[in-house]
Amino acid sequence: MDETLLLQKGQAFLALQPFSVLIGAELHALSLGRCELQVPITPNILQQNGFVHGGVVSYAADNALTYAGGTALDWAVVTSEFKINYLRPAVGERLIARAEAVHAGKSQAVCRCDVFVLVDGQEKLCAVAQGTIVRLPGKSSAT
Amino acid sequence: MDETLLLQKGQAFLALQPFSVLIGAELHALSLGRCELQVPITPNILQQNGFVHGGVVSYAADNALTYAGGTALDWAVVTSEFKINYLRPAVGERLIARAEAVHAGKSQAVCRCDVFVLVDGQEKLCAVAQGTIVRLPGKSSAT
Amino acid sequence: MDETLLLQKGQAFLALQPFSVLIGAELHALSLGRCELQVPITPNILQQNGFVHGGVVSYAADNALTYAGGTALDWAVVTSEFKINYLRPAVGERLIARAEAVHAGKSQAVCRCDVFVLVDGQEKLCAVAQGTIVRLPGKSSAT
Amino acid sequence: MDETLLLQKGQAFLALQPFSVLIGAELHALSLGRCELQVPITPNILQQNGFVHGGVVSYAADNALTYAGGTALDWAVVTSEFKINYLRPAVGERLIARAEAVHAGKSQAVCRCDVFVLVDGQEKLCAVAQGTIVRLPGKSSAT
Repeated sequence: MDETLLLQKGQAFLALQPFSVLIGAELHALSLGRCELQVPITPNILQQNGFVHGGVVSYAADNALTYAGGTALDWAVVTSEFKINYLRPAVGERLIARAEAVHAGKSQAVCRCDVFVLVDGQEKLCAVAQGTIVRLPGKSSAT
Repeated sequence: MDETLLLQKGQAFLALQPFSVLIGAELHALSLGRCELQVPITPNILQQNGFVHGGVVSYAADNALTYAGGTALDWAVVTSEFKINYLRPAVGERLIARAEAVHAGKSQAVCRCDVFVLVDGQEKLCAVAQGTIVRLPGKSSAT
Repeated sequence: MDETLLLQKGQAFLALQPFSVLIGAELHALSLGRCELQVPITPNILQQNGFVHGGVVSYAADNALTYAGGTALDWAVVTSEFKINYLRPAVGERLIARAEAVHAGKSQAVCRCDVFVLVDGQEKLCAVAQGTIVRLPGKSSAT
Repeated sequence: MDETLLLQKGQAFLALQPFSVLIGAELHALSLGRCELQVPITPNILQQNGFVHGGVVSYAADNALTYAGGTALDWAVVTSEFKINYLRPAVGERLIARAEAVHAGKSQAVCRCDVFVLVDGQEKLCAVAQGTIVRLPGKSSAT
């Protein structure tokens, strides 16, 4: 699929997720096995110290992993599991989560994600994640 | 600390997290090394299929792990890392995340969490998590 | 299957793993979704400080997870992924890894494992693990 | 430190680990925050299907993560936790585990590792790992 069409399809998909809309997530890039998801940092998504809540960072990682795996497995997928290490407090203007599939088989893809925070025009790595995306049972690759 | 006071302190803490307020999270129980966090399931926190978004399930696990570790380490803590396995789609009335510290040292606690979904009065296990909570550098245990 | 027969089958299986034989692993209990694997602590499996090497602790967790998941999924399985937290140095007479399946579906089981070290007759928790065991593609549950 | 000296120091360190000697592990490269560890594939380290036992793959990942983190933190370190995804059976001549620190602070480093199997002169990715290496309490960075 053309990458512009792929991105449009991905964005339409994101718009169907009420929680992603609530948070204000934006899909900025999507290609085979790769994805970039951004979340503008607003007061709503912070914790008590003014940092982005870890739950939002893990949301961004989880969703980016799913997109990266989804393009590698033809869309009808869910995240089976993932692991995340937080590296520094996320303070800045935007979260930028970039994920890629490092291996894709018939039924699952293993993906990694780097989550950056954009602060004064510079990206700082604030979390790294790794997880498994699986094809939904009964969904063929033509879905 | 008296458990009623501990719970009140924990609830006051949660009220300071804008993201937890946005999601509607509730702290239902808190004791030394243990915690129960609930999230009422509302349309806002769903994904495209009507299930609770994985990001909310991971938020609940992350925050419950942090509370369990926080009580074991005297509060000034952050989640360093965690891992989550999703077991089934979360469909129902409430998420219930129960976490406990399985080991606490001077500077970190390792905790586990079970996330259930309450559906028609019954709890179904929908995710399990495990992670590390660390004391913030420079914070004494008296903080 | 009768639990005595199940254990014998599991022990025969372990005897077919040259690496498990090299380490001296022993299967002490096996039932549906549960397993206990032990490793006598010998000089061969230590690291430079006289503790059991982390790689042996992770082997014990990995293999115990696989057995627990294997009985839940009818044997033809592999470990897809796992995560382990080391809690304290393993010093003592034996490693004891106890695993159980917390959820089993058609194609995968999610399992947890506690690894203890036996020292002077007492068990001390030294690691906790969580992972996914998957049925080998093309293997029916009758295998 | 000169990289040749660093590698010699690392190799001397590996020689002090009886379990690494038992398996036949070799340290092939070591620099600040990076490491390459190899394990020749011998019958001893296999499982019942003739693949390298998962426990050996996880050993290689764990030890490579520790070296990568150790050089970033000045040596007196242990692995606190890690997660591994197995991607394909390891069949071939050698395991090659390459790890790097993606973030290093004062007391811990977060590292990633790719484990390849060398088969007919070609490297195939067979596992990916991510974990936390921590400085041993009470050990200064000058140790």
